[in-house]
Amino acid sequence: MDLYSDEYFMKEALKEAQKALDKDEVPIGAVIVSNNQIIARAHNLTETLNDVTAHAEMQAITAAANYLGGKYLTDCTLYVTLEPCVMCIGASAWAQLTKVVFGAPDLKKGYTRYNLKMTHPKTEIVSGVLKNDCSRLIQDFFKNKR
Amino acid sequence: MDLYSDEYFMKEALKEAQKALDKDEVPIGAVIVSNNQIIARAHNLTETLNDVTAHAEMQAITAAANYLGGKYLTDCTLYVTLEPCVMCIGASAWAQLTKVVFGAPDLKKGYTRYNLKMTHPKTEIVSGVLKNDCSRLIQDFFKNKR
Repeated sequence: MDLYSDEYFMKEALKEAQKALDKDEVPIGAVIVSNNQIIARAHNLTETLNDVTAHAEMQAITAAANYLGGKYLTDCTLYVTLEPCVMCIGASAWAQLTKVVFGAPDLKKGYTRYNLKMTHPKTEIVSGVLKNDCSRLIQDFFKNKR
Repeated sequence: MDLYSDEYFMKEALKEAQKALDKDEVPIGAVIVSNNQIIARAHNLTETLNDVTAHAEMQAITAAANYLGGKYLTDCTLYVTLEPCVMCIGASAWAQLTKVVFGAPDLKKGYTRYNLKMTHPKTEIVSGVLKNDCSRLIQDFFKNKR
């Protein structure tokens, strides 16, 4: 795997998803990268924090803006293991992210079900990176819940 | 104005919007009501916090869940002075709010431009409550910026 490839950074997002799993959270992880450097890491904490807004992406966006000292993430890429929901794609648009890369599709709650134009016009979208690894983690989680 | 009417609680959201204005933030305010009691108040803090996710609604949803000790707001109404954006309507859907009441329409960034089905199926939507007061506050803000 090439250093600084989309697969490389998605692996890092998967490490975050694993941290969510360890807390019995739906295993979704995210990292934000600027100039090939990871400036934010986060994982889903909706149960731990009792907060529906505590998705991995939301926390990563807040953390990255905090790191950069400015609210716009115009030179940043968000890597997230699952297709963002409407809330998170909305946040990515406000943040003006350069690129959003996601792993597995979310056929129930993913934003692409609703309207593809909710992203910022300058944001490039890449999907399906390490899709199987990202899906498997979530599928196994729900299988174990039943 | 009747006590516990939509207008009554929108007035309270307008007070929050005024607090945002006092901080030179885009003047948008929100309150969340459960059993006719205000359990959360918030106003837009995107500039102050350098965080695109710090919309009035997002903060109000997090605060209400914190107050109730559970992440679902199934017996709550959100009042917000401006039509929610995609991010905020997505959060309202996750929170399963009973009702969302907004004041002024947002023709540029409002979620109704994209897809009306992004709300939770059980969430009732009411729009246009104290619309003129809510609009005027925002219009005056941008007029003074020019």
